[in-house]
Amino acid sequence: MTVAIPLSRGRDPLFRQVYQGLRDQVLSGALPAGSKLPSTRTISEQLGISRTVAVLAYEQLLAEGYATGRGGSGTYVATAGFSPRALSHEQSPKLRLSRFGESAVGASDRVKAYQHRKKRLPYNFAYGRSDLETFPFEMWRRTLLRCARKTPVSGLDYGPSAGSPALREAICVHLRRSRAVVCEPSQVIITSGSHQALDIICRVLIGPGDSVALENPSYEGIAEVLRASRARVFPVSVDGEGLDPKRLPRGARLVFVTPSHQFPTGVILPLARRVELLRWAARHNAVVVEDDYDGEFRYEGHPLESLQGLDSEGRVIYVGTFSRTVFSSLRIGYLIAPKQLVEVFTAAKWLCDRQSATLEQEALAEFITSGTYERYLRRVRRRNASRRQALLEAIDAHLGDRVEVTGDGAGAHVVLWPKKRVSEASVVAQAAARSVGVYEISPYFLKPSSHTGILLGYSRVNEKQITEGIRRLGEVL
Amino acid sequence: MTVAIPLSRGRDPLFRQVYQGLRDQVLSGALPAGSKLPSTRTISEQLGISRTVAVLAYEQLLAEGYATGRGGSGTYVATAGFSPRALSHEQSPKLRLSRFGESAVGASDRVKAYQHRKKRLPYNFAYGRSDLETFPFEMWRRTLLRCARKTPVSGLDYGPSAGSPALREAICVHLRRSRAVVCEPSQVIITSGSHQALDIICRVLIGPGDSVALENPSYEGIAEVLRASRARVFPVSVDGEGLDPKRLPRGARLVFVTPSHQFPTGVILPLARRVELLRWAARHNAVVVEDDYDGEFRYEGHPLESLQGLDSEGRVIYVGTFSRTVFSSLRIGYLIAPKQLVEVFTAAKWLCDRQSATLEQEALAEFITSGTYERYLRRVRRRNASRRQALLEAIDAHLGDRVEVTGDGAGAHVVLWPKKRVSEASVVAQAAARSVGVYEISPYFLKPSSHTGILLGYSRVNEKQITEGIRRLGEVL
Repeated sequence: MTVAIPLSRGRDPLFRQVYQGLRDQVLSGALPAGSKLPSTRTISEQLGISRTVAVLAYEQLLAEGYATGRGGSGTYVATAGFSPRALSHEQSPKLRLSRFGESAVGASDRVKAYQHRKKRLPYNFAYGRSDLETFPFEMWRRTLLRCARKTPVSGLDYGPSAGSPALREAICVHLRRSRAVVCEPSQVIITSGSHQALDIICRVLIGPGDSVALENPSYEGIAEVLRASRARVFPVSVDGEGLDPKRLPRGARLVFVTPSHQFPTGVILPLARRVELLRWAARHNAVVVEDDYDGEFRYEGHPLESLQGLDSEGRVIYVGTFSRTVFSSLRIGYLIAPKQLVEVFTAAKWLCDRQSATLEQEALAEFITSGTYERYLRRVRRRNASRRQALLEAIDAHLGDRVEVTGDGAGAHVVLWPKKRVSEASVVAQAAARSVGVYEISPYFLKPSSHTGILLGYSRVNEKQITEGIRRLGEVL
Repeated sequence: MTVAIPLSRGRDPLFRQVYQGLRDQVLSGALPAGSKLPSTRTISEQLGISRTVAVLAYEQLLAEGYATGRGGSGTYVATAGFSPRALSHEQSPKLRLSRFGESAVGASDRVKAYQHRKKRLPYNFAYGRSDLETFPFEMWRRTLLRCARKTPVSGLDYGPSAGSPALREAICVHLRRSRAVVCEPSQVIITSGSHQALDIICRVLIGPGDSVALENPSYEGIAEVLRASRARVFPVSVDGEGLDPKRLPRGARLVFVTPSHQFPTGVILPLARRVELLRWAARHNAVVVEDDYDGEFRYEGHPLESLQGLDSEGRVIYVGTFSRTVFSSLRIGYLIAPKQLVEVFTAAKWLCDRQSATLEQEALAEFITSGTYERYLRRVRRRNASRRQALLEAIDAHLGDRVEVTGDGAGAHVVLWPKKRVSEASVVAQAAARSVGVYEISPYFLKPSSHTGILLGYSRVNEKQITEGIRRLGEVL
């Protein structure tokens, strides 16, 4: 019997290739059950390999049960109770997906589009980014290393699902001061970015067919998660003061809002609407999710505290993230649950992924409690404030009456709304041709919209870039 | 008008306390809309605070819209269009949960019980742990730091949902060699531990009411995730050779198996059953999930390769983790998807939490490609082998014919099955009284079982501890 096995001097060891070649022939039936295999001497001559390689391959076949040795009489293909041919058809079956799986397929193209929005342009007004130039990396690395050194063995095993107690405490203290959030450390659940917090909230509170109100436009993450969860999504149009509670649909169990700096329009929900929203939620026994993604950055005239701090009933879930104040790939966010929901969210986090990684949680806790985080935030606030000033002045100088601006009261991006109808795509393309990166707002609308808006972030551009970038944009708009 | 505000020299700055006190009175109606507030001079005298503190508090009230200033005539409670009393009832509402949320509440007590299994005992046969004594921490920290230093700015922003390309490549190469997994880097999706991989698989492939076959007993994580997803779970009893494919239910869309070292019994699925399982899956168009949690540790007689490597149709999803070979709080696991499911799993990962944190992925990639990981695994394999030997000898010497043992062919734990009926809880308690930590198997059964089994891990005990621990256990059993 001649055995033909294609061999290549590649990554896999030779004996493994021989073993696999023989195994595949056993499984496909080319080497029938009970048949005698060539001796190791024969096969080594046939394949031009050393005897040792052949012996190793045969040993593995024997060990795994594909072959049996009969005393000294040679090696035989096993007659195990399996019919090998069943495995031989190569055609890929059509596997069935759940409805969530089908939705995920549907989301796939959009997700890819979100991921491909990165640009490398000299005047790139990227948004949703942290200020990496200002970030004290040396300090951060030292903190990381110190935490890596001092972690006790027990800190390397599984720990609390809700997250590192030190980080939960640090977040709690920080938010009480900076955002007037009313909470105890036990209410803080650490998540993999605020995105996971939103997903967990949807899973815990919404089932298929449940009604949910969502600002329109809004963060793509929550829109996709809700679509995938088969909730009935009611888009509520945002005006110059954010979501109007009068337009909320009856029967919504959940409302997602971004009161500090509506994403993406950047408008700020005024106090009267906040109170009205909470009253509406009380009347409808709904839960309000406050996504405070940009809560750390506020400018004159609008230092409104968190909606959560206004809520005396415990129906606001506060969601925050370090993606925009530290960096995104850290993947640390959190939700602050009303006390009655702490247990269910802790269990839900366990069901999702048991817990988040520990080291960076410990480092972040130390970073916050040492005061380094607050000092860094103050620097970024100052820098953002002057970049914002430069941006508004440049817009005034170069775009004059041609646009309206929203979003300058807080956060780190604004939206330009051209007064004359233009195509977003062509503005973006023409700007890119002038080395200026600006972004379309339309992907954030939940249904096709006649609005034309251009997003400009300012956390990664300096004043000079801002002035020149806007001057160039003036040639386009 | 006299305003009473309780003040304490605590964490919150005084002006914030004064502001909050006044704000609460506005919201509760104690300070009616339109009424005049005391002057800052009056209030500072009433409360015994400095004038500056009072001014700061008033400025915040004005800025947030709770008060208005009328020229020079003083400060008034705002007459904003909100009725404050709606916010004043303090009773917590009963919030509605989704069915997943209700299941999570149901899982909560069990989850707490799983988390409280840690013991601090001198002879602690903890299982499911990595060998931290052998782990090259200094090398790991250096790698971490090097990666933290060299990460480009783009590496700190959002990256690919499926994970760091370097890590996916490293895992692919490693598994091709060590587990004969057939894959390309594009098929590897990095998750937050293997637990998240299992959750994502359930979300993508199973809806409420879908049938799923699960080994009984099995890993609590998958059992809880399936309960929460409202799947119809069919427990398939495990015998001395693992799951018997003949007992698989009709119509199951998914089968979860741990072929290398059944969790928790430790038995190894023989080749014939593997082939039969794949045939069954082909007949029923089902997906097989292979959780290879302990695949790196195999002893004589059973070097079976992965089930995934046997599958020529692309219906096996391979799941792995670094929780037991690096450490659990790293939270890096992965799934290897058949090609046709790569897109849906990538999108599903994005829907869950966009991506996993990057730094430790980069460090792990370097750790693997540099060969350090493989060298460490070899050391652990040697150590595990000799500890296993010591354990089996001690069991032989001190427990003699009183127990049967399963699980010694692979992995890093065994199960003792006492021949005489005993209560697991009392064995565990009596062992603990002798400073020996052993663990009950019954929590892993999906339905009440008459089996009595005691779990003993050996990755964190040395030979001396093993011998003495088993001697002491001999006094109990």
